[in-house]
Amino acid sequence: MNEPLILTLSCTDRPGIVARVTSLLAESGGNILEAQQFDDVDNVRFFMRVVFALAAPTPALTSRLEALAGQLGLTWQLRPAHQRRKVLLLVSRFDHCLADLLYRTAIGELEMDIVAIASNHPASVLRHHVPGEVPFHHFPIDPATRPRQEALLRALIEATGAELVVLARYMQVLSPELSGWLEGRCINIHHSFLPGFKGARPYHQAHARGVKMIGATAHYVTAELDDGPIIHQDVEPISHADRPEDLIRKGRDIERRVLAEAVRLHLEDRVLINGPRTVVFKD
Amino acid sequence: MNEPLILTLSCTDRPGIVARVTSLLAESGGNILEAQQFDDVDNVRFFMRVVFALAAPTPALTSRLEALAGQLGLTWQLRPAHQRRKVLLLVSRFDHCLADLLYRTAIGELEMDIVAIASNHPASVLRHHVPGEVPFHHFPIDPATRPRQEALLRALIEATGAELVVLARYMQVLSPELSGWLEGRCINIHHSFLPGFKGARPYHQAHARGVKMIGATAHYVTAELDDGPIIHQDVEPISHADRPEDLIRKGRDIERRVLAEAVRLHLEDRVLINGPRTVVFKD
Amino acid sequence: MNEPLILTLSCTDRPGIVARVTSLLAESGGNILEAQQFDDVDNVRFFMRVVFALAAPTPALTSRLEALAGQLGLTWQLRPAHQRRKVLLLVSRFDHCLADLLYRTAIGELEMDIVAIASNHPASVLRHHVPGEVPFHHFPIDPATRPRQEALLRALIEATGAELVVLARYMQVLSPELSGWLEGRCINIHHSFLPGFKGARPYHQAHARGVKMIGATAHYVTAELDDGPIIHQDVEPISHADRPEDLIRKGRDIERRVLAEAVRLHLEDRVLINGPRTVVFKD
Amino acid sequence: MNEPLILTLSCTDRPGIVARVTSLLAESGGNILEAQQFDDVDNVRFFMRVVFALAAPTPALTSRLEALAGQLGLTWQLRPAHQRRKVLLLVSRFDHCLADLLYRTAIGELEMDIVAIASNHPASVLRHHVPGEVPFHHFPIDPATRPRQEALLRALIEATGAELVVLARYMQVLSPELSGWLEGRCINIHHSFLPGFKGARPYHQAHARGVKMIGATAHYVTAELDDGPIIHQDVEPISHADRPEDLIRKGRDIERRVLAEAVRLHLEDRVLINGPRTVVFKD
Repeated sequence: MNEPLILTLSCTDRPGIVARVTSLLAESGGNILEAQQFDDVDNVRFFMRVVFALAAPTPALTSRLEALAGQLGLTWQLRPAHQRRKVLLLVSRFDHCLADLLYRTAIGELEMDIVAIASNHPASVLRHHVPGEVPFHHFPIDPATRPRQEALLRALIEATGAELVVLARYMQVLSPELSGWLEGRCINIHHSFLPGFKGARPYHQAHARGVKMIGATAHYVTAELDDGPIIHQDVEPISHADRPEDLIRKGRDIERRVLAEAVRLHLEDRVLINGPRTVVFKD
Repeated sequence: MNEPLILTLSCTDRPGIVARVTSLLAESGGNILEAQQFDDVDNVRFFMRVVFALAAPTPALTSRLEALAGQLGLTWQLRPAHQRRKVLLLVSRFDHCLADLLYRTAIGELEMDIVAIASNHPASVLRHHVPGEVPFHHFPIDPATRPRQEALLRALIEATGAELVVLARYMQVLSPELSGWLEGRCINIHHSFLPGFKGARPYHQAHARGVKMIGATAHYVTAELDDGPIIHQDVEPISHADRPEDLIRKGRDIERRVLAEAVRLHLEDRVLINGPRTVVFKD
Repeated sequence: MNEPLILTLSCTDRPGIVARVTSLLAESGGNILEAQQFDDVDNVRFFMRVVFALAAPTPALTSRLEALAGQLGLTWQLRPAHQRRKVLLLVSRFDHCLADLLYRTAIGELEMDIVAIASNHPASVLRHHVPGEVPFHHFPIDPATRPRQEALLRALIEATGAELVVLARYMQVLSPELSGWLEGRCINIHHSFLPGFKGARPYHQAHARGVKMIGATAHYVTAELDDGPIIHQDVEPISHADRPEDLIRKGRDIERRVLAEAVRLHLEDRVLINGPRTVVFKD
Repeated sequence: MNEPLILTLSCTDRPGIVARVTSLLAESGGNILEAQQFDDVDNVRFFMRVVFALAAPTPALTSRLEALAGQLGLTWQLRPAHQRRKVLLLVSRFDHCLADLLYRTAIGELEMDIVAIASNHPASVLRHHVPGEVPFHHFPIDPATRPRQEALLRALIEATGAELVVLARYMQVLSPELSGWLEGRCINIHHSFLPGFKGARPYHQAHARGVKMIGATAHYVTAELDDGPIIHQDVEPISHADRPEDLIRKGRDIERRVLAEAVRLHLEDRVLINGPRTVVFKD
């Protein structure tokens, strides 16, 4: 049997979509391994993810899907389930998320190729060993050089063919232009349980407010800072005795697992954007 | 539009099942609202749950399903989504799960009619107010009277038409005969995170072992004590300072929410038994 | 041995406080069963909770503590560990927190006497059975009658001697005057993970934002709405498929356990207010 | 002010211990920063951990403590709070725990010096980069060579002065002799929520049983396999759709954070062994 394929799609909801999609797959010799769907009744939108295997290569499949997409007004994507994506990692001083993503990629947990790492700091500020085979780019930044730095980033993304950009505790705000250009393919980790404690130094904000749990939020980047569609969140309990530096320590664990999970969900085509929100088909 | 219906089914896995089932529903005028499936590849079993609405009553639907079931060897069930089930609650001295189930039923969270409560103790041992409209049966029990008590229980189940029996901290072991007769329609809450601490006084066992979390397990009753298919589990952290009575207090909260969740999942036809395990289609 | 006593105190931090307090207790024949302390180094404040048992009644203990309090500038309180507090519950339409507090009180988990229940709605809107022995007061409210209603509440608190007021999903905002008068002895449950989603209809806000977890926050009431010192918080994961009514259902479980835990912590003298925050000495 | 010191002690419980210990510290010019205690009433054992700072070096402190220890029968330890411990890591093929401990040590989160890594496999099987400054020892093992391999391990521990041995997914069972020799200074991570699924391949056992959560357990090694005093545990929910390989993936995250937390608790002198259990003074 051939490698499984993942079909994701969305469209205006109407009766019979599931039957038409699954019948098309059955007629093409596909055996469905997983299928999930969601009806957003408020917005009359339908979302679906199907994993299927073909008994034999089926050249007609794509043209059949194109025909169906035309009839139903589908936004759709078809990819081999284990096709690795090219990914660019951005980082600043704190490299716990970077170290975690590198390790998960190295052991095959995340199916991606890290085509480059870029930072506004030199590699020497990092505590983690950066593998020699991953190019590291130092793009210094200050208010005056920001436009030029973003032009370099954009050129790097284009040159490497990066399909996903991950802000792994990258402490610079992207311009609305760059954010807009990266829409739907750039994931950020914010070190708070959004929408609480937006902006800078969220652990200090959390300490000042006296909350009893802290969290992290992985979301797609949009032009609106800290307001993009949320992919994943998690929290941990804290106490009055935790000082901001303790929150930073406890936060590292939450951040790295929340970001890694969001990246995994994205790589497995489990996340579909639904306006300001996401549909996440969990496994 | 008519009330939604829930179709659940299982069969030997083969290509095309989803397409055939969803096409049948589409041809019958059904609009799929939710659909989940699972392939147990080790045992080549397929499981599916579909919620759908019919534009108009469709008398042919059932006969079509019967025909398809014959062709595919389906085990299947079709029920109106909000049809209330008749439920018998069994309880002993501790009534926190009973109180919780009564409240959730009263506010409409659990779609069930409590047709009776039965106990090996008189109602006077309970701390919670039993509503006047729910019949309470006191069936005393001792080693000599167990067979007679179980006969009374069985007669009560038959007389009330109870479709589900919930052991809400019922501290008596059912005989293999009664367990077998109730297979798939009797849910128990065990006050430990099975398979740890089977048998009596699990919180004392947990304290003696020095574990750092305690839990509860809701499972279908089988002839094998504490070994039936698990529906739901949850845990809470504890510390060295917790004495067995503290574990009992903390455990009450875990037990009642684990049991209530298992009952809800069962009532919404989200649990399919798969040999010694369950398939649980979460919402 | 006599019943244990709980001593709580706070003061400006300085060396030797623990030694002086514990030596005083030892000299008075006390055996310390539990002791916890916290230094707020930023604000140079010291907080302590000691549970101890006296071998024999010790009349001199209080005067010794008064003398020490004078020397160290202590704010302090001494209470028998199992002395029941008088508590007033306020409720509106949703009674899941009320039902939960009544049950936990009935089984002895919460050491309090519910001296009255008051509501802006008649008892007939409640789904839960209110025990006959607990007086129920219906104080209707509208913008014009609010001052008179608050005067009735205040009179009720004074007449019953209520030491704690619990807003068990009481959907009215207290005036700054009443909030101020109740400072440190009035606990509210807010149905969001503060500081996210302050104000009305937080579950609808959460759904609109597309967060992946919802929570609840128990806090002391202050004149600043939804901004009082936080006692306890908890969360649960949700998904894109949860509609606001699902969030309300899932939220009920979080709210009742968060409020009950906050009330328990308060009743056991485990919560000390530290400006806009709390010190919570967990067990 | 000098570096803080940590005093931990245990003894038979009796009145006045806290007062005597804290008075001794006050008389020595110590200011208590943290203090926690626990009375094991069943076994009449008292446990205490105090962090304090001295205004000036106090040579008499140790002799005063020795005198008090003689009077009260104390088992005690006094260490500078930030004194780094020498630690030996043992690993087999799976290196996620090793990678995690190396990173947390590198960024200063864990205050330890990794004096060596030893494995029954060559370094080439590891996916993670082992820093050049950490000696790596390959001690092959088979049933015939086990005694010799353990002799090498023991020699390495003695030569490096390792104060703690961490079995970071070391898949070999230590002999009762070596386990006994390492009592109280060897931490293992077992990849199940003990006491469930002892022994080999616990994720496969968990899958076969159909549990709904998996976990990990960090414990001190004793001669009794998988039965030593538990330091820390945690769990994650799973579903019917998780295959053993998914459990292994999800388990990696649980294992590494449970083991790292146990090591941190040990390094900060927060864990006191109490027979078959532990007292853990959390921060």
